[in-house]
Amino acid sequence: MEMPSHIIPYLQDVEAIMEGELAKEDGRVYGMLIPFLKRGGKRIRPILAIASCGAVGGDRKAVIEPASVIELFHNFTLIHDDIEDDSRFRRGEPTLQITHGIPIALNSGDALYTLLWKKLISIKMPPARLVRMQALYADAFKRVVDGQGLELSWIKEGRFDVSEEEYLQMIGGKTSALMGLSCEIGALIGGGTRREQKAMRGFGESVGTAFQIQDDVLNVSGQFEKYKKEIGGDISEGKRTLMVVHCLAHASAQEKERLITILSTHSRDPKDINEAIAYLKKHGSVEYARDRAISLVGKAKSLLKGLPDSEDKAALLSIADYIVNREK
Amino acid sequence: MEMPSHIIPYLQDVEAIMEGELAKEDGRVYGMLIPFLKRGGKRIRPILAIASCGAVGGDRKAVIEPASVIELFHNFTLIHDDIEDDSRFRRGEPTLQITHGIPIALNSGDALYTLLWKKLISIKMPPARLVRMQALYADAFKRVVDGQGLELSWIKEGRFDVSEEEYLQMIGGKTSALMGLSCEIGALIGGGTRREQKAMRGFGESVGTAFQIQDDVLNVSGQFEKYKKEIGGDISEGKRTLMVVHCLAHASAQEKERLITILSTHSRDPKDINEAIAYLKKHGSVEYARDRAISLVGKAKSLLKGLPDSEDKAALLSIADYIVNREK
Repeated sequence: MEMPSHIIPYLQDVEAIMEGELAKEDGRVYGMLIPFLKRGGKRIRPILAIASCGAVGGDRKAVIEPASVIELFHNFTLIHDDIEDDSRFRRGEPTLQITHGIPIALNSGDALYTLLWKKLISIKMPPARLVRMQALYADAFKRVVDGQGLELSWIKEGRFDVSEEEYLQMIGGKTSALMGLSCEIGALIGGGTRREQKAMRGFGESVGTAFQIQDDVLNVSGQFEKYKKEIGGDISEGKRTLMVVHCLAHASAQEKERLITILSTHSRDPKDINEAIAYLKKHGSVEYARDRAISLVGKAKSLLKGLPDSEDKAALLSIADYIVNREK
Repeated sequence: MEMPSHIIPYLQDVEAIMEGELAKEDGRVYGMLIPFLKRGGKRIRPILAIASCGAVGGDRKAVIEPASVIELFHNFTLIHDDIEDDSRFRRGEPTLQITHGIPIALNSGDALYTLLWKKLISIKMPPARLVRMQALYADAFKRVVDGQGLELSWIKEGRFDVSEEEYLQMIGGKTSALMGLSCEIGALIGGGTRREQKAMRGFGESVGTAFQIQDDVLNVSGQFEKYKKEIGGDISEGKRTLMVVHCLAHASAQEKERLITILSTHSRDPKDINEAIAYLKKHGSVEYARDRAISLVGKAKSLLKGLPDSEDKAALLSIADYIVNREK
C-alpha cells in the first residue's frame, strides 16, 4: 500500500507513543517488546483509526493515543497466537517464543496487555465518555480472544464440518472486530454522528473480514519474500480457512480424506502441504475466497457513500482496495 | 483457616458471580474455566476484600463485584503461571495445560483476563470514581505480571546472585500487590478514610509477602496431601526463593555449586530435590524464612490498631495468623 502521505506524521506519533510506553518499563520484562514492535507490520488498524477520525471532520491528533492502544492490543494477540499456533516466523523474523522461549514470550504478552489497559484508562477525557469508550474496547478485545478460542477448539476437537457461516463468525472475532473498533473509535473521537460511527464500524468489519480471507489466500499462494510468514503454515496448523471449508464441500471423498489427514496430522512436509494446496486450487477454492474478499471490499466501500469527499475518505477507499490486492 | 462465619454468605455471592459470568459465555472457549474455578483455592483475596470493607464500617455487599474481579484475575495468573513454570498440579489436580494443551490453556487465560476487565468496567458507580478505581486495579495487575516476568528473567539469565531485596521486590509484585489491592478496594468501597485505605493496603501487602514466603516454605517442607502442589516443585523450576537466597549466602563453596547445579538443570529427580532441600534445612534457611514471615504478619497486624474492634477486624487478624500457620 502506498501510505497516504497526510497520515504519516500521525502514524509516527502512534509509533512514538507505543515505543515510549515500553521504554519507560523494566527492560527485563518489556525489553523484547520494543524490537518486536519495531519489526513494523502494516499498521492498518491505527491508519484506519486516523483516517476515520479525519473522514468525519475530526482532529486526527485526538485519536493517536486511542489508536496506539489498539495497535498494542494487536501486537499482544500476535505474540500469544504465535505460541498457540506454534508459528515460527512473524514479520520475517523468528517468533518471540523461538527467540525467548514460551514462558517469557507468554509473560511479555500479558505485560503488554496489562500496559495497554493502563494506557486506555489514563486517556484524558470526561470519565463517563471514557468508560463508554472502554466498553467498546473490551467488547472488541473479547471478540478477538473468543474467535481465536473458537478456532483452537475446532482444531482440538478435530472438527472438519465447520460451515462457511461458522468460519465467518470466527474471523469476525479474530480480525474484523479490531478493524471495526479502529474505524468506530476514529469516528467517535472525531466527533462523527452516531450514524457515521455505525457506518465506519461496518466499513472496518467488512474490510477486516476481507483482510483475513486475503491473508488465508496469501498463506497458501503467496511468496515468503513478500509475505514474511511460512507459506502453507495454515495447512500445518490445520486451520479451517474459507478455502478449506469450500474445498471440503466440493472435493471427492478420497481427496477429502487426504486433505483432512494432512490438516489433522499437522504435517510440515512440503510434499503434503503442496498436495493440500493443489486440492484447494483444483476445486476453485482459492478463487472462491478471493471473490468473497473482493465482494466484501465492495460492500465496505459502499458504506462510505454518505461521507463528504476528503483525503481521509480517499485513504479509506484506497486501504480497502489494497486489502485484496496486497501480496504481504 | 476456620472461615469467619459472617463472611461465608458474601463469599458465596462472589463465587456465584464468577461462575455466572463464565456460564453465560461460549462453552468451547470458557467451559474449562468453570471446573477450574470450582477447584476452590483459599479465596483469600475476596475474603480480605469483604472483611476490609466491613472493618471500616462499610456494606460488605458493595464489595462483592469488585472482589470477584480480583479473584478472577488471580485465577487468570494461575493458569498462565502454570504454563510458564511448567507446573503439573494445581489445587490437587492436573494443571489446565496438562488437561487441555498449552494453546487452549493459554487462550482461556486471555479470555478470563478480558472478561474480568469487561466486568470491572461495568461495575455500577459514578464514572470518575470507577476510573480512579480501575487505575488501582491496573497498577496492581501490572505489578503481578512484572513480578512474574522478573522471576522468569532470573531463571532465563541463570542469575544466582539475587539479593534478599530483589527477592522481596519480585514477590512484592507477584503476591503482595493483589492482596494489598483486595484490602484497599475493600476499604475504598466501604467508605473508609484515605488513612484507613492506606493502612488496609499496607496490611494486605505485608500479609501477601508473608503468604508467599510461607508458600515457598510449604513447597519444600509441606505434604502433598495438604499442599496439593508438587513438593519441591520450586526446586525443579529453579526458583530463587528467600530460602535459596539465604542458603546461597551461607553454604560452603561446594554446597553452593551443587545447589546451583540442581536448580539450573531443572531436575525432577527426587534424589536431587531432597539434596537441595537438605542444604536449605542445614543452613537454617527454612527457619529464617519462617521468621521473616512471622515478623511480617506482626507488622501487618499492628497496622490495624487504629480500627475499632469488630468481627471483621477479628477476621483480618485471624487471616494474618493463618497465613503463617497454614499447611496448605
